[in-house]
Amino acid sequence: MILGIIGSGQLGYMMINTMRKYPMEFYVIDKNKGPAGYIADKFFYLNDYKNFVDSCDYVTFEFEQVDETVLKYAEEKNKLRPNIKTVDLKKDRLLEKDFLRRNNLPVAEYKISDSYKEAFEIAKSFGKGVIKSRHGGYDGKNQYFIDEGSRYIEEGNIPYVIEKFIDYDYEASIIAVRNENKNFEFFDPSFNYNKNGILIYNIAPLKDYNINNKMIDIAKKLMDKLKYIGVMGIEFYVVNDSVIINEYSPRVHNTGHHTLLGSSVSQFEEHVRSVMNLNIIKPVLFKPSGILNIIGTDINGKVNEIIDDKTDIYWYHKSETIRKRKMGHINIYGDSYDDVSERINKLINTVYENGLNNYI
Amino acid sequence: MILGIIGSGQLGYMMINTMRKYPMEFYVIDKNKGPAGYIADKFFYLNDYKNFVDSCDYVTFEFEQVDETVLKYAEEKNKLRPNIKTVDLKKDRLLEKDFLRRNNLPVAEYKISDSYKEAFEIAKSFGKGVIKSRHGGYDGKNQYFIDEGSRYIEEGNIPYVIEKFIDYDYEASIIAVRNENKNFEFFDPSFNYNKNGILIYNIAPLKDYNINNKMIDIAKKLMDKLKYIGVMGIEFYVVNDSVIINEYSPRVHNTGHHTLLGSSVSQFEEHVRSVMNLNIIKPVLFKPSGILNIIGTDINGKVNEIIDDKTDIYWYHKSETIRKRKMGHINIYGDSYDDVSERINKLINTVYENGLNNYI
Repeated sequence: MILGIIGSGQLGYMMINTMRKYPMEFYVIDKNKGPAGYIADKFFYLNDYKNFVDSCDYVTFEFEQVDETVLKYAEEKNKLRPNIKTVDLKKDRLLEKDFLRRNNLPVAEYKISDSYKEAFEIAKSFGKGVIKSRHGGYDGKNQYFIDEGSRYIEEGNIPYVIEKFIDYDYEASIIAVRNENKNFEFFDPSFNYNKNGILIYNIAPLKDYNINNKMIDIAKKLMDKLKYIGVMGIEFYVVNDSVIINEYSPRVHNTGHHTLLGSSVSQFEEHVRSVMNLNIIKPVLFKPSGILNIIGTDINGKVNEIIDDKTDIYWYHKSETIRKRKMGHINIYGDSYDDVSERINKLINTVYENGLNNYI
Repeated sequence: MILGIIGSGQLGYMMINTMRKYPMEFYVIDKNKGPAGYIADKFFYLNDYKNFVDSCDYVTFEFEQVDETVLKYAEEKNKLRPNIKTVDLKKDRLLEKDFLRRNNLPVAEYKISDSYKEAFEIAKSFGKGVIKSRHGGYDGKNQYFIDEGSRYIEEGNIPYVIEKFIDYDYEASIIAVRNENKNFEFFDPSFNYNKNGILIYNIAPLKDYNINNKMIDIAKKLMDKLKYIGVMGIEFYVVNDSVIINEYSPRVHNTGHHTLLGSSVSQFEEHVRSVMNLNIIKPVLFKPSGILNIIGTDINGKVNEIIDDKTDIYWYHKSETIRKRKMGHINIYGDSYDDVSERINKLINTVYENGLNNYI
């Protein structure tokens, strides 16, 4: 059995790493050879996409902003999992939001505009608003937070979605998996701490079981509607007793990396199992766990400071350390949620010795 | 940091697989390219051993019966871990047994002979005895069990060790790790079921804590004596309330593979950490766990039957399925020792559909 992965970044890298133990092979396609390309059984450049798709049993992607030609050809050959609709909706924030609203899934109020000036005014009219480019953009890129005090600064005119800013208590997410037989499983949702639109750390399971259940219901409904096959990450704003979808990612997700330590199965394993028509299982977190992302810095000379009984490292082997770039992450488990939280706080000081703001 | 691994079999394969997540690289040397060679960052053939050793920070081995020239050169360059003495003792069962006895570590009564006829008589004089070749031989190869009823059959005259057969209650083993700072840690010992000298399955932790403690003490003493760095597996016979060493293996061990599922750290990770001067930790088994070896058969079409909530597969990607050859293993965890045992018994029927004896 051969699984094709479109994209050669860290998510594909962890997918291969985790599933090397299975009796299958992994082919990777991308425009440049990244971490996953180096450990793949075979690497293809984009122009060779037909060979790539034809030689694989199934094709998945590790990132939704990948070359469309490959996606389309894989879909045409009935090999793409999850299906192409899940990506199409992600190409335009408007489509994503319309789809969610149409299916009675909770999203923040939003409007669109092709003019930054108008977008700015709409954001102001919301009291607080966030202007996001409709197309592309992730990890906080091309996003503008506007409140009463914001002064107008000229920006380019491109298609924007303007969302009413949710004054949330905290951010959370769920990693869920669905297979061809419509079986649905989920990992315990996690608390997420983002800064400048980038995930810094997360901890699971959430303490609030009521919130947990709402996220599980939404994940099930969304994945059923999309006839989804594979792992999906859904990010939420939590306000009082309710949840609002921030966005979904049709792939393994940064807020699911804690499943690599202290869990009975990882999100990568569930994804590959599902995509390859193997059993998916009810995951068990043996212990509360989380991750701290390593962003914009290496950890030369710090490895021994970081690893201990309940802490481990996952390094992505990227060629260059660049500000804001995710270079790796640290897995942490503990005896309780608060124990994990304390460990993460200590690690932040070790990893970001000049202060987090200087790296992200 | 670069770790060199001598040998490209499944133990090196799992070592690399497990530790790909670390910021280090893995070079492999062997006379033929096996599973580990295919996923190594660089593969060397034996005649290139100087380049291999010179380009690595440390060198370890995944199997003790490897080319001596590489071992010696790595030792000479102060890069070999564990040290060469641990292998030298394994080249000759007599040396191993003498060493253990000299250090007051419990071994069965033994004698030597270069004549099979004499060896046969010695074995008879023990009541029950086992004739083993002094040099080489593993997984039950070149071993003869002799009891009162055995009739003499001509065999070659080579150096033999004859051991008094221990009428053991069961077999057990411990996986322990020691580092340069003389820190010592261990995994909970396991019960092992061997047939024809090959491990079929194991389950940890052992129910008998008294026996556990004896094995821990012996491991600590043996590893201190050897100034050992890395993971070691020690196999025991358990008789009533006492333990007798069968043999030690200066490497990661087949009876430690259960640490790949349901543990806070695996034997492979502890070995690499220790060898690379990183922290070793107190391992935690989150749940009772074990493995079932997949020997002499593939599992085509059975993957979905095998994997479930508490069962996973580790496949070695060997080129050919051969009787007695270890092709992979199944990891199992459960709510109790007996739960694991039941799961293993069911799996035996799935994997060995024509009866275990037809595969080993």
